[in-house]
Amino acid sequence: MVLPDDTIADLLVEAGTRIVLLVLDGLGGLAREPGGPTELEAASTPNLDLAAREGTCGLIEPVGAGITPGSGPGHLALFGYDPLRYTVGRGVLSALGIGFDLRPGDVAARGNFATLDDDGVVTDRRAGRLDSATGAELAELLAGIELGDVRLFVRPVKEHRFVLVLRGDGLSAALGDTDPQRTGTEPRPPEPLAEEAGTTARLVERFVEEARRRLRGREAATGVLLRGFATLPEWPGLRERFGLRAVALADYPMYRGVAQLVGMEVPEHGEGLDAAVTALGELWGGFDFFFVHRKQTDSAGEDGDFDRRVALLEDADAVLPRLFDLEPDVLVVTGDHSTPAVLGRHSWHPVPVLLWAATARADGVDGFGERQCRGGGLGSRFPAVELLPLALAHAGRLAKFGA
Amino acid sequence: MVLPDDTIADLLVEAGTRIVLLVLDGLGGLAREPGGPTELEAASTPNLDLAAREGTCGLIEPVGAGITPGSGPGHLALFGYDPLRYTVGRGVLSALGIGFDLRPGDVAARGNFATLDDDGVVTDRRAGRLDSATGAELAELLAGIELGDVRLFVRPVKEHRFVLVLRGDGLSAALGDTDPQRTGTEPRPPEPLAEEAGTTARLVERFVEEARRRLRGREAATGVLLRGFATLPEWPGLRERFGLRAVALADYPMYRGVAQLVGMEVPEHGEGLDAAVTALGELWGGFDFFFVHRKQTDSAGEDGDFDRRVALLEDADAVLPRLFDLEPDVLVVTGDHSTPAVLGRHSWHPVPVLLWAATARADGVDGFGERQCRGGGLGSRFPAVELLPLALAHAGRLAKFGA
Repeated sequence: MVLPDDTIADLLVEAGTRIVLLVLDGLGGLAREPGGPTELEAASTPNLDLAAREGTCGLIEPVGAGITPGSGPGHLALFGYDPLRYTVGRGVLSALGIGFDLRPGDVAARGNFATLDDDGVVTDRRAGRLDSATGAELAELLAGIELGDVRLFVRPVKEHRFVLVLRGDGLSAALGDTDPQRTGTEPRPPEPLAEEAGTTARLVERFVEEARRRLRGREAATGVLLRGFATLPEWPGLRERFGLRAVALADYPMYRGVAQLVGMEVPEHGEGLDAAVTALGELWGGFDFFFVHRKQTDSAGEDGDFDRRVALLEDADAVLPRLFDLEPDVLVVTGDHSTPAVLGRHSWHPVPVLLWAATARADGVDGFGERQCRGGGLGSRFPAVELLPLALAHAGRLAKFGA
Repeated sequence: MVLPDDTIADLLVEAGTRIVLLVLDGLGGLAREPGGPTELEAASTPNLDLAAREGTCGLIEPVGAGITPGSGPGHLALFGYDPLRYTVGRGVLSALGIGFDLRPGDVAARGNFATLDDDGVVTDRRAGRLDSATGAELAELLAGIELGDVRLFVRPVKEHRFVLVLRGDGLSAALGDTDPQRTGTEPRPPEPLAEEAGTTARLVERFVEEARRRLRGREAATGVLLRGFATLPEWPGLRERFGLRAVALADYPMYRGVAQLVGMEVPEHGEGLDAAVTALGELWGGFDFFFVHRKQTDSAGEDGDFDRRVALLEDADAVLPRLFDLEPDVLVVTGDHSTPAVLGRHSWHPVPVLLWAATARADGVDGFGERQCRGGGLGSRFPAVELLPLALAHAGRLAKFGA
């Protein structure tokens, strides 16, 4: 049962305990052949297996049955934020994903370079998926567009994709997409969806027109399509909701960005899991909650590389003793979603999780894998948002409910 | 976690894939003796066992903990419609159950032939449970009642039960029951529960009075009691909610009716499971979702006939290869509720389910039975409404949630 927000907040007590959340991105997998092991089952992970034996295990569903989570929702659920309720606009996620320093009030949108014919009709929504170098060049061209007092940023993402950010007073993200989502029609004007969005709509319209003018005569792309206008959400942070001073040890901009959305600090540190654990040790005295993120297990899944995933999981296993040396009160190891190598993409399959704590009730699980976790004490498909309250309980941070 | 309706609708993508839902009505059972096998466990079902081994299994709860589902709610849950939210009036279910061609705007009610004394006081709410032949004769008698422009239908159901349908302009089903639910009191007048129900209330009152007049002097029954006034609900169909062109292969009126409520087509076909599968093959190119219904497993349970249930489950097992020959992308086999022969009625016990798909994560379940499914990856008591989103995911019909 997912608890109302204030149920937890009302029970918080200070305990001076520490929780470590190690996220192996895209952890869940699938067998390569019928009846065979998943990536995690194939990997030799003696440290994770021991932690699983001593702790309580299960499989989480980050968003819901059948739902394949994006990285944002997947992580928010692990941080205790119901991803159906705490939604982030796509423009914001794109800006976070490239490490753009988005500020409160900024309006961000996803952009596509597209091909429009002489009548302004969209003939290719992705401009033939132009290469990233060309995309960067075109973004540079549009970054020079001026909109009076409002500052404008155009940053390349990858191939035909870019991020548009407007910064200034009184802007609103209540705008409809200009991307018509199909060819054979003109882009839509940016429709204001609220009264206060009129000015922003006119600015976006000016940007779109000026972009067309600047792209005129180019072969690569002749127009832009925008969607997912959004501003940074203003959410209660982990401190307010769960009494946690939290820090993220993450290499990739997207995860640092999502961590910031829930009030984590995001110090710089050396690259890789070993460097992250070193940084974690140095920060040990100053925080209660440590989010350590490992991206590569997901990337290998996206690449369809079963064996590389196995090797990366074995690497991750090797740092576990260093984490235990810090004597955390609670250690949670899981993923934000599954990325089975055989699918080569995120999937909806439940994700293995182990929760280690001195107070964990051992559940007979004898190793860390999908099959074993299925029989674990946390359940075979339990909502990921329940993890953080469980971690708080094992960390001695929740008082009794009722007398 | 049961997702809001628009979460799924927003993620739908066209995939050209096909989902088959085989419902063995009342599938879940109980052991005949302590420690013994349930009907499904006793049955020899090699094809279902193989599908269970290759797929993911579990046990569903159609409505909620401890709730014994009727056929309507049980099926709605399997179709992805939360039965607590999508409720169908009893009058409508009764009309569907006898195959009455109910139309939008029709007002339907359940009727009882009852015994009233000379003062109009109810002495037997079921008129001594008169036999079905007598019930049919009395229904015929009342069917001749005229209500001006409004057309009236009285159709026998079984024993003392009948269905009343009013068809005309401006009718309303916002009427209180006339059935007082106890003896020793007069039937209630049909109370209008909304302003617009005044006319309909007067029509029903006329029907009730005229029925008493026509039944005067009869021994079998001297009055009628009405309850569950309802009109056909107008729900978004499977196409709108889940992007599915859906067809039902079902022999019995009730299930054809419920299928129609969610927008399925209900072509005629030969009787029995084999004929249904043949029809399914002929319809294969035109639909995305195929609901195949097998009633007899429930009937045998209602009859308390354990052995017949076992035999019927073995029959059902035998058609599985024919279903697999069609190469469905997803095959789900389950029931709408349990009907253990030892109870002789519907029950609240969770119902075995297997979900077979190339993307299913095998979960170590080695056969299709209550005990085995309990350890399956889908969970041992998960909400039946989650099945359809899971099937959509395995059919490649859901895009990623968030970025």
